[in-house]
Amino acid sequence: MIGGGQLARMTAQAAVGLGIEFRVLAGTAADSAAQVCAGTTIGDHRSASDVLAFGAVCDVVTFDHEHVPGVHLAVLERLTSVRPGREALRFTQDKRAMRERLGALGVRCPAYQPVTGLAEVLDFTRRHAAGRGTGWPVVLKATTGGYDGKGVWVCPSADAAAEVLSHGVALLAEEHVAFDRELAVLVARSPAGQGVAYPVVQTVQRDGICREVIAPAPNLDDDLATRAQETGLRIAAELGVTGLLAVEMFEAGGELLVNELAMRPHNSGHWTIDGAVTSQFEQHLRAVLDLPLGSPAPTAPFTVMVNVLGGDGDPYPRLVHVMAADPGARVHLYGKQVRPGRKIGHVTVTGRDLPGLRERAWRAASWLSRGTEEPVPELPGPAAPAVAAVRVRTGFRRGR
Amino acid sequence: MIGGGQLARMTAQAAVGLGIEFRVLAGTAADSAAQVCAGTTIGDHRSASDVLAFGAVCDVVTFDHEHVPGVHLAVLERLTSVRPGREALRFTQDKRAMRERLGALGVRCPAYQPVTGLAEVLDFTRRHAAGRGTGWPVVLKATTGGYDGKGVWVCPSADAAAEVLSHGVALLAEEHVAFDRELAVLVARSPAGQGVAYPVVQTVQRDGICREVIAPAPNLDDDLATRAQETGLRIAAELGVTGLLAVEMFEAGGELLVNELAMRPHNSGHWTIDGAVTSQFEQHLRAVLDLPLGSPAPTAPFTVMVNVLGGDGDPYPRLVHVMAADPGARVHLYGKQVRPGRKIGHVTVTGRDLPGLRERAWRAASWLSRGTEEPVPELPGPAAPAVAAVRVRTGFRRGR
Repeated sequence: MIGGGQLARMTAQAAVGLGIEFRVLAGTAADSAAQVCAGTTIGDHRSASDVLAFGAVCDVVTFDHEHVPGVHLAVLERLTSVRPGREALRFTQDKRAMRERLGALGVRCPAYQPVTGLAEVLDFTRRHAAGRGTGWPVVLKATTGGYDGKGVWVCPSADAAAEVLSHGVALLAEEHVAFDRELAVLVARSPAGQGVAYPVVQTVQRDGICREVIAPAPNLDDDLATRAQETGLRIAAELGVTGLLAVEMFEAGGELLVNELAMRPHNSGHWTIDGAVTSQFEQHLRAVLDLPLGSPAPTAPFTVMVNVLGGDGDPYPRLVHVMAADPGARVHLYGKQVRPGRKIGHVTVTGRDLPGLRERAWRAASWLSRGTEEPVPELPGPAAPAVAAVRVRTGFRRGR
Repeated sequence: MIGGGQLARMTAQAAVGLGIEFRVLAGTAADSAAQVCAGTTIGDHRSASDVLAFGAVCDVVTFDHEHVPGVHLAVLERLTSVRPGREALRFTQDKRAMRERLGALGVRCPAYQPVTGLAEVLDFTRRHAAGRGTGWPVVLKATTGGYDGKGVWVCPSADAAAEVLSHGVALLAEEHVAFDRELAVLVARSPAGQGVAYPVVQTVQRDGICREVIAPAPNLDDDLATRAQETGLRIAAELGVTGLLAVEMFEAGGELLVNELAMRPHNSGHWTIDGAVTSQFEQHLRAVLDLPLGSPAPTAPFTVMVNVLGGDGDPYPRLVHVMAADPGARVHLYGKQVRPGRKIGHVTVTGRDLPGLRERAWRAASWLSRGTEEPVPELPGPAAPAVAAVRVRTGFRRGR
């Protein structure tokens, strides 16, 4: 796996049980995955020689992020199996290519337009003022390189847009969708063409960073859930994805719009470690190794995951309080240096009583983050049920 | 953790989520834990200098086996925190001391007697012929160094006993208990004195090797289950155990007799990785680090674990068949060289239908072992229910 972040760390953890030799190419020995993985090589994912030397000793190469340059991937593919392959990864590296491809497939997305100057932005907002509002705010997105809210600007005015345009990066303008809530669907697809879909989850973001995931999404319309899973499986098949595909979506007025794609384990799937038969990390390994996929069935009526963001000091000394307060809370720390707002861990709780689970997960996560209690945010979307009575949908199917 | 076997490997896996720096002292780089753990030191657990050099850089030292000599432990305890400590470990290293201590506590055990010659064995069998049978077969056990059936001989005759005596090792004679079934209880105790008990499990052994574990033990009398858990917690407290304590027991005529003790993660607790809120490996770490203990609650009505024993060739190529046949089976491989009868992995399945779960677990394990299906053995003890309707008992309590 190229990249030594927490996704590689948790994939290394899943690899232990499969009895495979798992290696990581990490930037430094202090990287999250390098701390725990015996098979760590230190190297730069932007360096062709580092990437190729690493790939040459692997039967299969996969990724913890989208940042390996396409030119290196093209050479790597001649040496070994690269999963997902360059052709698929391109759609996570280039948002314009992704929007165009999804458009060609008839997958609904927010309206978008490549923009290079303010006149084009203003033109875009005028054209999208008609159907759904004023056209403002408008979303500007860097075509390449964004993650966790970085590279995404919600601009309330022409002045704000002009400021972003002044950075000189390639941009897309996108309509600011007045969504009811955000959903995500995680699917896996193997080279043999087998596909599985996890239950659709609700995600709660703040400042572009995922804070909370609820699995399954409460009160989700059955047909919409099926459509979300079918959309995920269809995109994976059409784009030739091998491994995981996470599809972030907006639910708006009973419709789904695809916001982002990721072809790797994803924050919206961390709940599966404690809440599903097969974790997303094992599933990704099974898929890229072309092993049969594991059951995506949940093991509890509801699972709630809340991220631990870097706040005030080392979270480790606070473990004692969190563990004493809630013996059932599942804490996952990533061994990362604390920086404000950085994802340094997550907490998962499973059970039946959704409001109670949310309270426990937020309390544990905010305590680890800052030693204080952060209030549980209002959950957007249909009113959450007090007790689970959901039909949980999972599915196995051929990828095509 | 001193020792690089599969218990250390799975403890390393659990340590990933706790964000702690976990180190292993392994005999070779090919050891099961050394393959996956970044913090591996190669050294000999019988060497004072290796053990002390390793311990000197650790805040807490714990163990994957019982074989570190007591003299090294005594010195190690002056350097750092050793958990469990030498005083407790002595009772797993010396079966005579264990029997004497449990006897003094009033814990029921099989009748036993240290023996040095055939006359003493014959005397022992005569004295134990009265109550429970002929006195034959008699069990001879090496006082020190046994595991997985090694160091235990079931002797049907004086000739067989004489043969064992000729090895010249210190021996105990024990009555051969005509048990109804074998049970095990796993408890954890922290230095702060907190204790938790997992549900009592049924274990199925063949040739002295654990083959299958069912959690919770089906149709176990409520009072007997409570007594088993209380016995485990009491032994842990009286012996000053820190970390896990596994107590292997015989159920015989509605009574419990303690057979063996282990103060580490134990094969009878592997089911907890997939079947309990807190796995035994995380629990052991929490206990030896003096963190609050995690919930031992099961996450499914029944969990069945079957060991994968070394059979015919590398299990890895057979993963594809096992995973294709049963997407819900949880496979754990240890990366160990295959030797006939050696534990090289285990399979866990969870659910409600016990006979179905047993069939799935045995099929997957025997396929990984030998590429064939081994029939599911008859389950000794009270008839197993077709569908779970058990009250599952877990408990938190003070260790004393």
